[in-house]
Amino acid sequence: MKNLTGKQLREEKFPPNLPETINLKHGKFTFATGNSEFPLLKLESGMKFGPITLDYETYGTLNKNKDNAILICHALTGNSHVAGRLDKDSETGWWDPIIGPGRPLDTNKYFIVCSNILGGCSGSTGPNSINPETKEPYAMKFPTITIKDMVETQKILLEKHFGIYHLKSVIGGSIGGMQALQWGVTYPDFMDKLVVIAATSKLSPQSIAFNKIGRHAIMIDPKWNGGNYYKEKRLLDGLALARMVAHITYLSDEAMQIKFGRKHANITEYFDFDEKFEVENYLDHQGYKFVKKFDANSYLYLSKAMDLFDISRDFNSLEDALDNIKAKEILIMSFTSDWLFPSYQSQEMSNILKEKEKNVEYHEINTYSGHDSFLIEYDKINPIIDNFINKD
Amino acid sequence: MKNLTGKQLREEKFPPNLPETINLKHGKFTFATGNSEFPLLKLESGMKFGPITLDYETYGTLNKNKDNAILICHALTGNSHVAGRLDKDSETGWWDPIIGPGRPLDTNKYFIVCSNILGGCSGSTGPNSINPETKEPYAMKFPTITIKDMVETQKILLEKHFGIYHLKSVIGGSIGGMQALQWGVTYPDFMDKLVVIAATSKLSPQSIAFNKIGRHAIMIDPKWNGGNYYKEKRLLDGLALARMVAHITYLSDEAMQIKFGRKHANITEYFDFDEKFEVENYLDHQGYKFVKKFDANSYLYLSKAMDLFDISRDFNSLEDALDNIKAKEILIMSFTSDWLFPSYQSQEMSNILKEKEKNVEYHEINTYSGHDSFLIEYDKINPIIDNFINKD
Repeated sequence: MKNLTGKQLREEKFPPNLPETINLKHGKFTFATGNSEFPLLKLESGMKFGPITLDYETYGTLNKNKDNAILICHALTGNSHVAGRLDKDSETGWWDPIIGPGRPLDTNKYFIVCSNILGGCSGSTGPNSINPETKEPYAMKFPTITIKDMVETQKILLEKHFGIYHLKSVIGGSIGGMQALQWGVTYPDFMDKLVVIAATSKLSPQSIAFNKIGRHAIMIDPKWNGGNYYKEKRLLDGLALARMVAHITYLSDEAMQIKFGRKHANITEYFDFDEKFEVENYLDHQGYKFVKKFDANSYLYLSKAMDLFDISRDFNSLEDALDNIKAKEILIMSFTSDWLFPSYQSQEMSNILKEKEKNVEYHEINTYSGHDSFLIEYDKINPIIDNFINKD
Repeated sequence: MKNLTGKQLREEKFPPNLPETINLKHGKFTFATGNSEFPLLKLESGMKFGPITLDYETYGTLNKNKDNAILICHALTGNSHVAGRLDKDSETGWWDPIIGPGRPLDTNKYFIVCSNILGGCSGSTGPNSINPETKEPYAMKFPTITIKDMVETQKILLEKHFGIYHLKSVIGGSIGGMQALQWGVTYPDFMDKLVVIAATSKLSPQSIAFNKIGRHAIMIDPKWNGGNYYKEKRLLDGLALARMVAHITYLSDEAMQIKFGRKHANITEYFDFDEKFEVENYLDHQGYKFVKKFDANSYLYLSKAMDLFDISRDFNSLEDALDNIKAKEILIMSFTSDWLFPSYQSQEMSNILKEKEKNVEYHEINTYSGHDSFLIEYDKINPIIDNFINKD
């Protein structure tokens, strides 16, 4: 028996798309430059901000009517690279098994767009971008942004760059699901179908608490230096710690039992204070891998955007907010072992949408894989998405 | 309506015991000094260690036969001060509503002992104690200790200091419950009754992961200085962070919804990055209150002792371990919303004990208060403990 990692097993089952097979294109679009065509973006906070660049990828081909587009919204630490490989040595996109010929988001039928979110650090404007006024990175002078602001920038990208004024679907998991939900409420006529996976209508205090832990860990790290750490390029322990905490919330009690149990890295030195259980080594590995590729200030601003997310903020109630949605069909999906955004939160949205006589389909998927299920359980989620997206 | 805190409400219902009413005594006992009467303690790791001082309190009066004693084992950051007030200005003991005349652990009937655990920082020998060889605090040269080591020291205190060779009961919650369980397995003839509350037979990988986060937070804090921070007396941000993470695990999703919801400390500055939700202020408050009174190195060693806890370590199975218990009656209690040591873990122990035809009583208490329930839900736990302890 081969001893393959989860990723290798997945790639055996879903061979990575080749860039040419899915017509992978990578690009950037800059707007909110402050001229008459592209005024500064008015953020939800009221502040005006720009310029803004979005880093995007597309797969498939936009048809003449420009009505075959699907927008994918990524999660907290994701990026625009959803599918395929940019070249043979590069990493496979983060949702590759869902995209491509014959897969649920079929690149022979649809034109798929994903952009790195505003505030991110994978090519779009974020705290590590250069502030044109000071010629220094914004760092902590970056404005507070919200999920709604992310949606605004995605809409500008679609309209002004691609000429897309209507989407087949908006789809996202985790805070990508929050963006999809925000799209449905704020721009109800913009899409036919809405897919909200492993998300919530508002952050619970427990989730805010975990995000606070992550931010606090970053901000008490002297190497973070009040956000001005870019010149030194040192590995930030605080950011590693934030990622470790997040990883616990992405898994589940049962997933950890199966994955690690009480296996000890060095059983002969069991009572040595410095020796570790395997779950500890896993967290160390994930934490310090992450700090090499992610910007701590981005983490601060994006986790804050999550905390501020409450789809009912501008409404009298959640019912009123969700009543705004006009998508012809809505798919809501949750996972039994997801305790970051537990099923009951998705169930509540689904119930309200049903009461409001929206055409909603709710699936609670039975799995031990926790919040991360939307990036793992393709055998379970692919048929549901396939049926929902392609049934007509 | 008065706006009372949870603690004030509790003290209205259970007025704090006066020291004289419960015959409160505070003392210290030193052993493992290395002489013929008190040899060094052989720790579970194999290392020999001493001297050891235990700080203790007692309530009630030891009878002539010395057979009316109950041992209380405290949780991670607890201390020997379980009941009453040392003087009128001091803090009420941490389990006061359970102890005293007419309460489940009735000081008119029982002699109650609780000592600060080995490795603690509230008067017993721990990493902040002076190493007699170096005249400096042990800091990180303190040996790795285990729950079993804590039990060994408690047994020496009972036998050598009080002359107690048999207990009415051993009782504890959280890691106090682990100590009680260890007592039952290692010294099965020493007690009539065993009470294990909100505990587990072994730390799960998820709980190890949370403890790892706490330790990592402490150890990456430059002010911790490799453990040698005693001279500077600076507030350790890392320890505050460890406490914040722990507090999340002591509560529950629902408890946080009820306690904080999405209340924002400063709604007019909602989009200000530095403004916080109330749950964030709560965590800050708890974290930084804690660093003033608890030793970071103690936190490291005690959380490690938790991680190493596995009652079946010296046995072939959990069944074999629990089969050792000879207490005439066993009470196991868990709380529905405790996700740190979830009910299924207590249920498993209870099922095994039943299969082994032990006299076990299992109560799963329905509450949203999470792991902390054993320090809060007196209306629910007192009648159960009362009935169990006093029924004959």
